[in-house]
Amino acid sequence: MKHPEDCTPATLLTRPQLARDLWGRVHLVGAGPGDAELLTLKAARRLRETNVVVYDNLVGDAVMALVPAGVARIFVGKQASNHTLTQERITELLLELVSRGLDVVRLKGGDPFVFGRGGEELFDLLEAGVLVDVVPGITAALGASAYSGIPLTHRDHAQSCVFVTGHRKADGGALDWPSLAQPHQTLVIYMGVGTLGEIASHLMAHGRDRQTPVALIQDATLAEQRVVLGTLADIAQRAEQAHIRPPALALIGEVAALYDPATQQRLAQARA
Amino acid sequence: MKHPEDCTPATLLTRPQLARDLWGRVHLVGAGPGDAELLTLKAARRLRETNVVVYDNLVGDAVMALVPAGVARIFVGKQASNHTLTQERITELLLELVSRGLDVVRLKGGDPFVFGRGGEELFDLLEAGVLVDVVPGITAALGASAYSGIPLTHRDHAQSCVFVTGHRKADGGALDWPSLAQPHQTLVIYMGVGTLGEIASHLMAHGRDRQTPVALIQDATLAEQRVVLGTLADIAQRAEQAHIRPPALALIGEVAALYDPATQQRLAQARA
Repeated sequence: MKHPEDCTPATLLTRPQLARDLWGRVHLVGAGPGDAELLTLKAARRLRETNVVVYDNLVGDAVMALVPAGVARIFVGKQASNHTLTQERITELLLELVSRGLDVVRLKGGDPFVFGRGGEELFDLLEAGVLVDVVPGITAALGASAYSGIPLTHRDHAQSCVFVTGHRKADGGALDWPSLAQPHQTLVIYMGVGTLGEIASHLMAHGRDRQTPVALIQDATLAEQRVVLGTLADIAQRAEQAHIRPPALALIGEVAALYDPATQQRLAQARA
Repeated sequence: MKHPEDCTPATLLTRPQLARDLWGRVHLVGAGPGDAELLTLKAARRLRETNVVVYDNLVGDAVMALVPAGVARIFVGKQASNHTLTQERITELLLELVSRGLDVVRLKGGDPFVFGRGGEELFDLLEAGVLVDVVPGITAALGASAYSGIPLTHRDHAQSCVFVTGHRKADGGALDWPSLAQPHQTLVIYMGVGTLGEIASHLMAHGRDRQTPVALIQDATLAEQRVVLGTLADIAQRAEQAHIRPPALALIGEVAALYDPATQQRLAQARA
């Protein structure tokens, strides 16, 4: 979602480098799930007060429209294939910018500390002596849940909720399928469109009921939000038939059965 | 946290009851973890535009200070001992208010759909024919994580995160200890100050390493935020020694070892 008014880093890097006590700050800010009104008051203030916004793929156009005209924008959209290298380059870029006295908002989709690699960026910057703070954001699970009318926890259906990512490279490790297959919990899969069939198979193989309800939510909180309802046994096929594409989130568990298109319509009506 | 300017419902209920198409709406709104700037832009707008705010214990004074002077406030603070009855009364009250043409913000600490019983309120109101929407909020785990510098997920330490409540009556069910005791995940315990020792014992009994780091965070995101660091083996004792009291949240898992008081101080400095 590169913005037409983006500037190149080169424009900003002609400034002289300064002594460390004159460096700018980095604000690691969560942009929320999509609807620009789901930014926090603090995130919106950071955007108004900063010199530069460094943002990536998951930050939507509606949020970027809140960035004032005088603020520079740098797109650092990540590609899954060269993840590690790009992460290092992003940190280098942030260091270059603050060392020239610029305040930077590092804007990440959702919340910086939920599958956003925000932890790595934070500790790299702290180690380099930069002043950083973290502004939390509405993570996709909360946005999708509120706008679809599917509670993440519910006394009768789910005593816990678990967030995992379906994007294996994004977390670097194997998942504990026996635990994830336990009943009475809501399992939220981030970035799982491509691997949904595989995930469902693992859960069924480890004993989760084939009829466990699954709601797949594309473009959560945006006007174009779509929900496909299915079961572990058929959700991958239904997703393909409905041409669901990223970004989408899967809510797996008994709470997904509470989804009703009529409810969602009433929620949208009350929201208007 | 009852507010001195609270009105009694009786003041509002002298209005005549109206035909359903003239009823007000209910906005089920997440108040976030404490810092008033962590309200979303949408939540802040709802507070400005409503007639009445119905709120409970977990909504802090800083957030209530954003409610305009002309808006009525009704405190419905819950006591653990008469939870069920009070929940019914709250729904009755909301119905009484909307049937008199009033728009109501039902304000809940954190996010309405994470251990807030928001799902039950939503479906009760929908069933009664009320127009309702849900505005997500920064749930305590996200706030505590951002303001303490402990990421919930991290490629090297935690491939998933799990939210549970330590307050058994709040979720009505037993927890699956073998799953919760698995490594490589961050376990977040809401409302667990009173039961922390018991929870730690269960986790150790099911194989979680006694040296697993635990960060206990009281008054997350407020100026008075406090963090106590320990291990599963000693966190209950340390919490008692430090006189930790609710509201507090426990982050259990390898990521908690990333906590450093110096980092937290730098985060606060950058935030100022």
